[in-house]
Amino acid sequence: MDATLELLAEKGYEGLTIEGVAGRSEVNKTTIYRWWPSKAALLGAALVEAEVLDFDAPDTGSLDGDLRRLVEGVARLLTVPPASDIAVAALGAAVHDPALAEAAKGFFADRFARELPIFERARARGEIDASADPMMIVDLLAGAVWLRVVFRQLPLDRDFADRTVALVLHGVRPAGNVA
Amino acid sequence: MDATLELLAEKGYEGLTIEGVAGRSEVNKTTIYRWWPSKAALLGAALVEAEVLDFDAPDTGSLDGDLRRLVEGVARLLTVPPASDIAVAALGAAVHDPALAEAAKGFFADRFARELPIFERARARGEIDASADPMMIVDLLAGAVWLRVVFRQLPLDRDFADRTVALVLHGVRPAGNVA
Repeated sequence: MDATLELLAEKGYEGLTIEGVAGRSEVNKTTIYRWWPSKAALLGAALVEAEVLDFDAPDTGSLDGDLRRLVEGVARLLTVPPASDIAVAALGAAVHDPALAEAAKGFFADRFARELPIFERARARGEIDASADPMMIVDLLAGAVWLRVVFRQLPLDRDFADRTVALVLHGVRPAGNVA
Repeated sequence: MDATLELLAEKGYEGLTIEGVAGRSEVNKTTIYRWWPSKAALLGAALVEAEVLDFDAPDTGSLDGDLRRLVEGVARLLTVPPASDIAVAALGAAVHDPALAEAAKGFFADRFARELPIFERARARGEIDASADPMMIVDLLAGAVWLRVVFRQLPLDRDFADRTVALVLHGVRPAGNVA
């Protein structure tokens, strides 16, 4: 698993091969193929188990604090190596590799299940009501990080997390208008 | 340009070659190379000129209406062929191809310049104040579409545009709490 992620970070998805993983890990190629029939399957398993992508949902006592931590975590995942080399390469390759897309889908579903308690606690504290859509909130915030970092290739300002979360919590309203 | 986009939609970025474009367009390969030194450069030029990706900023008379049209446009771009085959393949490949990443960056900058009048009009109408960050608003909305469609591979509900825009305009607040 480590060898798979190292090679992905170094060479990208195109350069990742089961032969390369076998050489790096000193495990026989046929042994790897017995468990994972393709490099997409191998990478999918490695991503789910990757410590570098591991994720503990924040619990700061407020929805505002939890969401800011969440955005900071996504920002680190997409900008700080080696996690960013792995995450960006794997997600980019998932766009045109159906087997890897399945792995990415599983990765997002797993993370979302771990994020849900943030919203259950916020509801219990009266910070949101039952009509709030947790997946939409997460996707707005994480999607904004992805667009700015990966597609626009622009830096994240220091207060990016504070400002995106404030926008999603309070909306865009002119000063003095609270309706 | 048409041959480049057709081959991208049919075969993905890996399968796109200058030889293939030469064959499809009946243009000599060396003529293509004279103008575009690589397939990334050729695709970058084709994307900027692509009618299928063309974009007119909406002007519905309200920020709410304009942003809903904007989200619907991004949703179409990422889900309705042939535009979606082209856009998703090109953006996915941009993640691991620096030359194509430059083209994608230019594509986003060009679109953003055309989206800015939406926010200038909203400011003139008093719907937002000077502290509002147009790029952040666009990235939250477009990013949410990308995450749901491409990474989660989940369908967009009919009211996806209405709900994401309402969230960004008014925030997540429990019923009865307008503070």
